[in-house]
Amino acid sequence: MRLFATALFLSAALLGGCATPASAPTGSLLVPPERGNGDLGLVIERESGSIGVLDTTARTRLGTIEGLGDLSHASVVFSRDGALAYVFGRDGALTKVNLRTGRIEGRVMQAGNSIGGAISTDGTLLVAQNYQPGGVKVFDARSLQQLADIPAVVDGKASRVVGLADIPRNRFIFSLFDAGQIWIADLANPTQPVLTKFANIGKQPYDALISPDGRTYIVGLFGEDGLAKIDLWAANPKVERILPNYGKGEQPLPVFKMPHLRGWSIAGKHAYLPAIGRHEVLVVDTDTWQEVARIPVAGQPVFVMARPDGRQVWVNFAVPDYDTVQVIDTQTRQIVHSLKPGKAVLHMEFTPRGDAVWISTRDDHRVSVIDTQSFKTLATLPAKSPSGIFFTSRAARTGF
Amino acid sequence: MRLFATALFLSAALLGGCATPASAPTGSLLVPPERGNGDLGLVIERESGSIGVLDTTARTRLGTIEGLGDLSHASVVFSRDGALAYVFGRDGALTKVNLRTGRIEGRVMQAGNSIGGAISTDGTLLVAQNYQPGGVKVFDARSLQQLADIPAVVDGKASRVVGLADIPRNRFIFSLFDAGQIWIADLANPTQPVLTKFANIGKQPYDALISPDGRTYIVGLFGEDGLAKIDLWAANPKVERILPNYGKGEQPLPVFKMPHLRGWSIAGKHAYLPAIGRHEVLVVDTDTWQEVARIPVAGQPVFVMARPDGRQVWVNFAVPDYDTVQVIDTQTRQIVHSLKPGKAVLHMEFTPRGDAVWISTRDDHRVSVIDTQSFKTLATLPAKSPSGIFFTSRAARTGF
Repeated sequence: MRLFATALFLSAALLGGCATPASAPTGSLLVPPERGNGDLGLVIERESGSIGVLDTTARTRLGTIEGLGDLSHASVVFSRDGALAYVFGRDGALTKVNLRTGRIEGRVMQAGNSIGGAISTDGTLLVAQNYQPGGVKVFDARSLQQLADIPAVVDGKASRVVGLADIPRNRFIFSLFDAGQIWIADLANPTQPVLTKFANIGKQPYDALISPDGRTYIVGLFGEDGLAKIDLWAANPKVERILPNYGKGEQPLPVFKMPHLRGWSIAGKHAYLPAIGRHEVLVVDTDTWQEVARIPVAGQPVFVMARPDGRQVWVNFAVPDYDTVQVIDTQTRQIVHSLKPGKAVLHMEFTPRGDAVWISTRDDHRVSVIDTQSFKTLATLPAKSPSGIFFTSRAARTGF
Repeated sequence: MRLFATALFLSAALLGGCATPASAPTGSLLVPPERGNGDLGLVIERESGSIGVLDTTARTRLGTIEGLGDLSHASVVFSRDGALAYVFGRDGALTKVNLRTGRIEGRVMQAGNSIGGAISTDGTLLVAQNYQPGGVKVFDARSLQQLADIPAVVDGKASRVVGLADIPRNRFIFSLFDAGQIWIADLANPTQPVLTKFANIGKQPYDALISPDGRTYIVGLFGEDGLAKIDLWAANPKVERILPNYGKGEQPLPVFKMPHLRGWSIAGKHAYLPAIGRHEVLVVDTDTWQEVARIPVAGQPVFVMARPDGRQVWVNFAVPDYDTVQVIDTQTRQIVHSLKPGKAVLHMEFTPRGDAVWISTRDDHRVSVIDTQSFKTLATLPAKSPSGIFFTSRAARTGF
């Protein structure tokens, strides 16, 4: 999941990091040696360039790791063991953080303006997608040494890259905003990427998602209505267009107000997605990719997140409804609960078995833990201008 | 997943345990403090009452933990943090093992003959299902103190319990072999279980599975053909019968040769299940629960395991074909590969993103790691009469 964020606030901080344990540490560790990290997580503190380390079992904050630079549009992927968080900052920094020790193990400034990254299935490779200078870069996940640079130049012009996702066998798929293409990089030999290119996919792809099984890649288009889709399991994958009216709102939206496709959810046989420019969640059949229903909601949806079991979909909203969250029951397609967890809801992360959701409210400087059945607030944790929340259970999932 | 196992070999060992690191440990730890445990696993060594601790990234064996008693039909669940493995032994023992330290942290003899257990969504409760004396028992996951005893007595007769699964909100569902009932225990207050009972579900339920979303509970019947199903998301859940011919083989099988339902897989819109008494895998539509195809295979299937992305299904077989594994492509329903990893294939466990499968071959005393794309053997690890393989990534999944 990438974050819906609209502005850059901070200048880049340089290399450095220190851990401030919230409670008695073991030696200099945030997590005692005998304790596991499968239930840990982190919250991005966008304005202070720090992350808070979270314990989803005790529902506490274990400590703070500082010195990560500009985190206004940060995204995170995890090592296979779940101990290492790789933080991709908007400022082009890639920082390797150990959640167990609370220490920064490495940091490189890899680009001028970055929009996130991904990790290979085997955990050995990191790939960053960049706005400036465009293209993607490949790094050794252990050393952060650069292994390859893939400039994404088409007709002599460098393209910004969006919609990066890992797919099986150390391959990565991404979209070229300026060139209107989709590329797959096969990194079986990381220093010699093998590229497969799909041209003429539509104008200005601005974000994408990969289905949970790694099969279907869907790209949103800013320059025209509709979306582009590739079935990666096909014998000869090709680009198809779906939902030809998607994008037609009451009025055109600027790009920074376009709901990110990472805010889509596929649950069971349906995808749930934010209508653009309308106060609706769209329900789409994933067999036919036809719209089958629209659910009225409180505002312009931003993230439309399925609980892991698919029974509920949680929705947050753009300004002025950004203090509200609504819960849709996917069986009845009715809103079963509305809540106001705080000002400027920026992200929602479910525990992997779906019993709770963690919600960051930037302007109230807190993270709320909500029971998804009773809708009671189970805990409230302090966080400075929190945005993204990322749990280590993502390490086991494709496309996260 | 429970193991397909037919005999008891060992007498119970009593409390005690020691770790034997395979390589240089940090202090007395199997795993250094800064290393995560999201990519660890264990293999049951059934005859020596030990477990081998596995590193799925380096594809190595980190050490051995001994003193677990009779593991001939052992099953394992994990704590939310993935550090603790709770091992349910056939001898009725429940052992709490820390994979990071390599130490046994607790052990109770909770029954005379046990058939496995489950852990609650919040990780605080363990439930064991027992043959002797029947019923289920509830334990505090930290202390292993018994919190409740649910005898499963119907008409004055104690029933053996099978098919136990965790479902959301600290509830558990299980089946009564002798009484032909399904019970749900709500453990919101663990010392005061609230029971919901479904009677007349069919004769002699012998195993069950829960769908990955926790919605559908399916029970196999030994005493008659067909299966019983409950939709747990229904407003008023009730028992329905499906696949009325399931169970009719060429000839009746004894109960110990019945393929376990935990060997079923639900992938995409279909379930894949072993035919009984036939050399076939059945394909069933999960909307209609009608059989839609049969795929001929090399022998009587035992486990029919979907790769996490659902693209492949891997099948192992009963004697005499128990050295063989076949791989079905779910898109073409063709066998795309056959392999012979060793004698007496007892279990297959996929890495969570599906790039590899770990296969135990009991009589060749090894675990093989197979690439699911190239089918190459990536590593072979020694193990004494290995049976079940369990990865810590199960901690994030319902029904595991």
